[in-house]
Amino acid sequence: MSTPRRAPSGAAVLRPELTEAVVDAVLAELAEVGHGRLSMQRVAARAGVGKSALYRRWPGKDEMVMDVVGRFGVPAEPPPDTGTLVGDLHALVVGMRDWLDHPRLASIVPDLLAESRRSPRLAEAFRERLSGPRRDRSREVLARAVARGEITPEQAGGVEAELVVDLLGSVPFWRVAVHGGPIDDQGATALAELVARGMTAPR
Amino acid sequence: MSTPRRAPSGAAVLRPELTEAVVDAVLAELAEVGHGRLSMQRVAARAGVGKSALYRRWPGKDEMVMDVVGRFGVPAEPPPDTGTLVGDLHALVVGMRDWLDHPRLASIVPDLLAESRRSPRLAEAFRERLSGPRRDRSREVLARAVARGEITPEQAGGVEAELVVDLLGSVPFWRVAVHGGPIDDQGATALAELVARGMTAPR
Repeated sequence: MSTPRRAPSGAAVLRPELTEAVVDAVLAELAEVGHGRLSMQRVAARAGVGKSALYRRWPGKDEMVMDVVGRFGVPAEPPPDTGTLVGDLHALVVGMRDWLDHPRLASIVPDLLAESRRSPRLAEAFRERLSGPRRDRSREVLARAVARGEITPEQAGGVEAELVVDLLGSVPFWRVAVHGGPIDDQGATALAELVARGMTAPR
Repeated sequence: MSTPRRAPSGAAVLRPELTEAVVDAVLAELAEVGHGRLSMQRVAARAGVGKSALYRRWPGKDEMVMDVVGRFGVPAEPPPDTGTLVGDLHALVVGMRDWLDHPRLASIVPDLLAESRRSPRLAEAFRERLSGPRRDRSREVLARAVARGEITPEQAGGVEAELVVDLLGSVPFWRVAVHGGPIDDQGATALAELVARGMTAPR
């Protein structure tokens, strides 16, 4: 257990230094004991802060966990426009791969998915904080492809779009969770090319 | 807790009736408490058998869990030949969807993936009992497409094949784990068509 770097300040807004200690503690607890056994008490003790500092910021552990995991390296913006659908898809796959490649997140995300099956509140937080923003970035990439004339507006808004958004997340996840290692550069390229061909080929 | 339907027999091979009670107990414990807190003791008590009956069959809980989950509705054979790659891919997606659609398995598989990150022995059992056989069935479908001239032998054996095998499993899983419900018929058809076009389109 680490010692506090500063005494709790009592201020309503956490200072950046304090947030960093809390973020570290949440990630370490999640990776070691999992969401089911994590508690506000354990996180506060590990971060060297009072429990009240956590409750001033978050109403409960689900919100705290999702806020921390959601901040951790998830890009806020869609990837830069590469000029082609295949290039943009590749950037999304690499972004997901790099996010999952953090040694702690690789253990945390499967755990959160499992706990979400038992906690509708956590499932909702997962969709709102992690899954939702990632899906929005993917949809933005499809909208660019419509603007370029690579795919039709229907493709960017229907069943096919939802599938593509799913597989850009699920395949990099599957590699880590089932195979134990991140998707490699060859795999990321092949995935982007397969999806781009599947969307743009004559039918 | 159920009462034993028969007293433990002491025979070296479990009778079918006994196996069924054990299978039910393993699935119920996994769904309720998760792999981390499941024990041979709890399963034996729930199934109404002695712990020794379980240890005669399995060396430990990882093997027991994977044997039970692996038996539970995973088809042993590749799907019947539909005559086209797209038809065979659709059958694989629907097979995965139907397997995951069991209410208990939908909670169990994410849990096993999460625990696999903490237990290399469970990860190995997962690959050997669940992931491996599913991958073999998918590869058989790609081999048929080579025989029909729909794809090249290189496509059925390289990076692209591994990707396709991954996404046929990961997308139906993602729908259940992240979205909370199985992939629907429209989604299954769109996934099979996207992949088939991606593999067979000119490049």
